[in-house]
Amino acid sequence: MIYLDNAASTVVHPAVVKEMLPYFDTQYGNPSSIHRFGRKTKNAIEKARKQVAALIGAEPSEITFTSGGTESNNTIFYGCPSAKSELSHIITSSIEHDAVLEPVREFEKNGVRVTYLPVDEHGIVNIDDITSSINPETVIVSIMFANNEVGTIQPIKEISKICNKYQIPLHTDAVQAVGKVPIDVKELGVDALSISSHKINGPKGVGALFIKKKLIITPNILGGGQENGLRSGTENVASIVGFGKACEIAKERLDKNISHFKKLHNSMLSKVTKEISHVKLNGHPEKRIFNNIHLTFLGVNGEDLIIKLDEHGIAASTGSACSIHTQKESHVLQAMGFNHEQITGSLRLSFGYMNTLNEVNETVEVLKKVISELRSVSPYKTKYNF
Amino acid sequence: MIYLDNAASTVVHPAVVKEMLPYFDTQYGNPSSIHRFGRKTKNAIEKARKQVAALIGAEPSEITFTSGGTESNNTIFYGCPSAKSELSHIITSSIEHDAVLEPVREFEKNGVRVTYLPVDEHGIVNIDDITSSINPETVIVSIMFANNEVGTIQPIKEISKICNKYQIPLHTDAVQAVGKVPIDVKELGVDALSISSHKINGPKGVGALFIKKKLIITPNILGGGQENGLRSGTENVASIVGFGKACEIAKERLDKNISHFKKLHNSMLSKVTKEISHVKLNGHPEKRIFNNIHLTFLGVNGEDLIIKLDEHGIAASTGSACSIHTQKESHVLQAMGFNHEQITGSLRLSFGYMNTLNEVNETVEVLKKVISELRSVSPYKTKYNF
Repeated sequence: MIYLDNAASTVVHPAVVKEMLPYFDTQYGNPSSIHRFGRKTKNAIEKARKQVAALIGAEPSEITFTSGGTESNNTIFYGCPSAKSELSHIITSSIEHDAVLEPVREFEKNGVRVTYLPVDEHGIVNIDDITSSINPETVIVSIMFANNEVGTIQPIKEISKICNKYQIPLHTDAVQAVGKVPIDVKELGVDALSISSHKINGPKGVGALFIKKKLIITPNILGGGQENGLRSGTENVASIVGFGKACEIAKERLDKNISHFKKLHNSMLSKVTKEISHVKLNGHPEKRIFNNIHLTFLGVNGEDLIIKLDEHGIAASTGSACSIHTQKESHVLQAMGFNHEQITGSLRLSFGYMNTLNEVNETVEVLKKVISELRSVSPYKTKYNF
Repeated sequence: MIYLDNAASTVVHPAVVKEMLPYFDTQYGNPSSIHRFGRKTKNAIEKARKQVAALIGAEPSEITFTSGGTESNNTIFYGCPSAKSELSHIITSSIEHDAVLEPVREFEKNGVRVTYLPVDEHGIVNIDDITSSINPETVIVSIMFANNEVGTIQPIKEISKICNKYQIPLHTDAVQAVGKVPIDVKELGVDALSISSHKINGPKGVGALFIKKKLIITPNILGGGQENGLRSGTENVASIVGFGKACEIAKERLDKNISHFKKLHNSMLSKVTKEISHVKLNGHPEKRIFNNIHLTFLGVNGEDLIIKLDEHGIAASTGSACSIHTQKESHVLQAMGFNHEQITGSLRLSFGYMNTLNEVNETVEVLKKVISELRSVSPYKTKYNF
């Protein structure tokens, strides 16, 4: 099997699993308990908080653990007290993940005004649009760091300068970006940032929300007052510990991973474009996370392609795994101006630290074969002279 | 070490850990992915859903996975569309867990009327109070199954008869009761029921909400539409699988566990009352979960007692682990009419499947010793002639 769907989820690093195991069978105390079982798990959480903070240049006290990236994104919107007021205005982009778009749409139903910024053909927002969209009612700006489908990176630092000027909090969904590009929240100047563990070789079911010291938000889940009152519920100790370790590894391996991903990306791109006709890289060629390669093969149905690849032992995706439940055409590609045919023919391959150049070569060989098969029966066969 | 704080959290059963492991290192796909990695994790979740449903006599489709008991409780309140209306009325009890009380108090701030039913000296609500509290604005009744501090079981079946008569949905927080008493949601007639994995030898960070087929609730966390649209976010596969296995084991061992807990409970109670003076069992002597023994030792400070026990290698609690963050006196014991001295002197010991009669004997010996020490310097020394 060749697993090229690391943007959807990743293998848990063996060192992460090793770190988690004691928290199942020996250190199983509730972190709120005052006996030693409790104190040990409490300490383990605080260690993990430091590891997560270190990866993004935050203070440990600015990290709140959540059940994942989706909850982190929800928390910032539901937690921003003024965001729910009918009089407020929210700025986001048209290519956000549903974990941002769905809460925002819910507010919109209740009268909140929302600006969904357009993007160019590479999926980048125009920073002038931010300035012109801001008005006295704007309470939060949320622009994703790197897109989950096409991998394009947004000019977050430039956006934060504008937001800081107008004193409007800026949130960024960095679920896909963390571990793929250097991120320093202080240098970026963002006020809130979402992270997910299972995208960086940590376990599923845990994530974090960075909330800058001065930003006051209200809790989304109420109860025993864990996480400094911001997120109630017994802490998911083993997973938090694993997430912390995954962040430590991601920090240590960042440069190595970036060059590894670039090597795989460039190799695959050059081979695919050499071996297969009517193919195009989507997203920005340079301003991107290089673990992602998103391609359109004209005259091919992406879902058929995924199934064929799966038959050949290759795991890939058309875009967001999460969109499977809604069965909609990609809103990201639509916003980038793609037509139905271009959207239909898209394929996302996403690399992990374990992928090799040999796997890239093998995948290109399989792609060549199955695309040829699919095109031989394509309704576009005559149009493109396949 | 003797771990007697299983009401706070439990060891993860070795068979549960074994079941979880493949979902870290080999079956790490996103359940929403259409390739085989995705399909396998999707199937694993559906298997777990059946295991959870089987433990409480529900249909698998009536089970929604959450990040734990707290989120389950929040989901039912925030998801009950009419519960948030200023015109609505909620009935709950004065001894609920904060994961129920805090969301309800939040609604109260916004104008919702809430009836907090009183309890008797054993911690039981009067079912006539339910009938007399119901009015045309009542949108939900939420009464916990077994109390987390004193272990008292409420007359849920009788309450559900009343609620069904008036067609008002009944939710029960069964976090402490599941695995300690037989539970069949159909027989009980409840509309919603919260479960937590880490109280029944499953991993932390996962739980479930049973929602009866006909009850319509709105999601609390929005995004990719997982869990049939009711709970977005990539599913916590390994933990869900572990939770499923824990439910399977809990079902298989239910009778065995109940008699084991009764044996330990009765042995400890008879020994403690024989060996130590001025001690009283709290909660109902019969209508209780027997893994819980909650005692008041007059003239002793419970926190000092916990620390002394910890020094002797025994993990215990004064009451709810979650209340540590608020540092309040137990609202449960207050509602049961306890005075300050009685509340202060309380100790909760809670058994797990691994505890033995030898551990009970050893604990009583230590209790005898440390209570004698504490009483020798107690301000109540003269009052009770210690």
